[in-house]
Amino acid sequence: MQPYWGHHFYLPNQQHPLSRAIGESLEQARESVAFLVGCDAFEVVFTGSGTEANNLAILGATQNESPGHILVSSVEHESVILTAESLVGRGWQVEQVPCDSLGQIDPESVAERLRGDTTLVCVQLANPVMGTVQAIRQIADVCHKRGVRLHCDATQAFGKIAVDAVTLGVDTMSISGHKFYGPRGSGALYLRGGLELSPVSYGESREMSLRPGAENVPAWVGMGVAAHLVSRCIDEVEMTFQELHERFVNGIYSSLGDAVVLGGRGVLGLPNTICVELPVLASKVQEIARELVVRSAEADRPPCEVTRVLAAAGRSPEQIARTMQISLGWTTSREQVDRAVEFLVAACDSARF
Amino acid sequence: MQPYWGHHFYLPNQQHPLSRAIGESLEQARESVAFLVGCDAFEVVFTGSGTEANNLAILGATQNESPGHILVSSVEHESVILTAESLVGRGWQVEQVPCDSLGQIDPESVAERLRGDTTLVCVQLANPVMGTVQAIRQIADVCHKRGVRLHCDATQAFGKIAVDAVTLGVDTMSISGHKFYGPRGSGALYLRGGLELSPVSYGESREMSLRPGAENVPAWVGMGVAAHLVSRCIDEVEMTFQELHERFVNGIYSSLGDAVVLGGRGVLGLPNTICVELPVLASKVQEIARELVVRSAEADRPPCEVTRVLAAAGRSPEQIARTMQISLGWTTSREQVDRAVEFLVAACDSARF
Repeated sequence: MQPYWGHHFYLPNQQHPLSRAIGESLEQARESVAFLVGCDAFEVVFTGSGTEANNLAILGATQNESPGHILVSSVEHESVILTAESLVGRGWQVEQVPCDSLGQIDPESVAERLRGDTTLVCVQLANPVMGTVQAIRQIADVCHKRGVRLHCDATQAFGKIAVDAVTLGVDTMSISGHKFYGPRGSGALYLRGGLELSPVSYGESREMSLRPGAENVPAWVGMGVAAHLVSRCIDEVEMTFQELHERFVNGIYSSLGDAVVLGGRGVLGLPNTICVELPVLASKVQEIARELVVRSAEADRPPCEVTRVLAAAGRSPEQIARTMQISLGWTTSREQVDRAVEFLVAACDSARF
Repeated sequence: MQPYWGHHFYLPNQQHPLSRAIGESLEQARESVAFLVGCDAFEVVFTGSGTEANNLAILGATQNESPGHILVSSVEHESVILTAESLVGRGWQVEQVPCDSLGQIDPESVAERLRGDTTLVCVQLANPVMGTVQAIRQIADVCHKRGVRLHCDATQAFGKIAVDAVTLGVDTMSISGHKFYGPRGSGALYLRGGLELSPVSYGESREMSLRPGAENVPAWVGMGVAAHLVSRCIDEVEMTFQELHERFVNGIYSSLGDAVVLGGRGVLGLPNTICVELPVLASKVQEIARELVVRSAEADRPPCEVTRVLAAAGRSPEQIARTMQISLGWTTSREQVDRAVEFLVAACDSARF
């Protein structure tokens, strides 16, 4: 990213040789993101974040439509749920599709709720709290059989599992750069070729007239490099995550017989995401095991995604208060996993007495 | 910005000591931007760009209002004009206030056009093409006498002249980081304390619930540092610009008697912006003087702000084709100015024959 902050400050499409070079760098970044997503470069709209991509997908798909019905899964991110709900004031009806105790959305539950005026269905690819990976292909089939558009917030999945927009069959899909070691302030929306989307912000025509404002070249180039890295190593990363995940869970279970690992596992789960219901309050464990940086209902700042997602999966407030979410990263080692388990078990033991 | 891309990747408001430190860095950046703007830190909403700030100010002020009347000056940026015009479909009436031959908006022209249902007036502080600085204080008085909100796109002014939101009396004001040597992807909206604004995008509550999504800490910290630098040296910068501006214009006039310098000068002009009508086609001059990076109607990529602004100031297409805009930067030297004049004069001479 460095050169693009300084000497290479030109924007693409200006009248200067350096400008053309910058345009080429940007298109190379777009191709890297497209390769990661499994689509063509012309189907990638750069944005400033995953949140912005979700807003664009939902507001853009409804902007010029007469008010109808929108289905969102009960475990979506705030930027999906609240964006959909913002349309209620304009006459739209927003309905939530419930999940099972593992956070899974049944494609049949989606099918049952589709109506003649359903315009959009939003189901995320993977949940950041429970790690649940949804059966997007089946949900896409259900939607397309009825001519309904499917938006998939895939921000949590990239860098953890292989993703292929075409195989998944989604219409729009959100990407967040900083979720896969790209820079903050970078995101993208996959927009299936030929699909229409209305702009929701206005200015100089950039990014297929869907994202006005000067191109954030450094951020998008940075995301492109991260996308390239992910594409190259995702199979290896996934295998390592799976091994470490198993190691973590086995460690927990062998010492804490009464702990419960929630959320999807194997093909239905993000291999880097561990969501565990402890025998004691998560807040107590966190007080003791300060070396661990974890997520929990208490540690979660408003608007409390942890609480909302776990409640949607049928956990009681008391269970939620005992639940903790731990993520593995690309650099996490076996030793770190073992140490984390040790800390966690010791903290649970000391919190129990 | 460097540490915030890597080790200091936490977001503010997470449960981690480093997170608190990052929160403090962000609030320090907000104070630097507030100092630059002449307001309190709580009146600064960080955004991803000036375009985003203009969209938020205009869409946010009208979102929950019944359709009425909006006045925009005829020399506004696309992100103001097109955002206002996007509301026409929802029943709003958008009227342009014309400017004089120097690009100046007469406060009386604004007053005459205010109606009972006028909700918002948008007048920029300084024009990027002609350099014209508007009489914002007088326009604000006219608006406030009638209880109408004034939005001011000040993106072009920061780093070139001293700006004080309170003295100007504006209600909202847009800031773009990369216009004053801050990073791309950084912007802010000044929102006068106590003023209401509706969110126009949705997600996790950040930035007074007006700008969802993970805080772009590196970009905003970078903009804060740039703001601090500008605040410290703006008087000196302004004086240097004025001297160089005069040197440039004198150089042009002494060699090209038939050139015309357009736009505001002195207190009514941005001292770094030179807009000059040449005796020959700008495109021809650009072909010859390749060392100069300039703006012109032909070099301007869609949507042609140069053409639009110059036409609003009454220039004919033939005059517009002969007009060129040159900007001075903080590092521009007298020698560079002299060389630029030399190139320009030589190119005009050779284009003439």
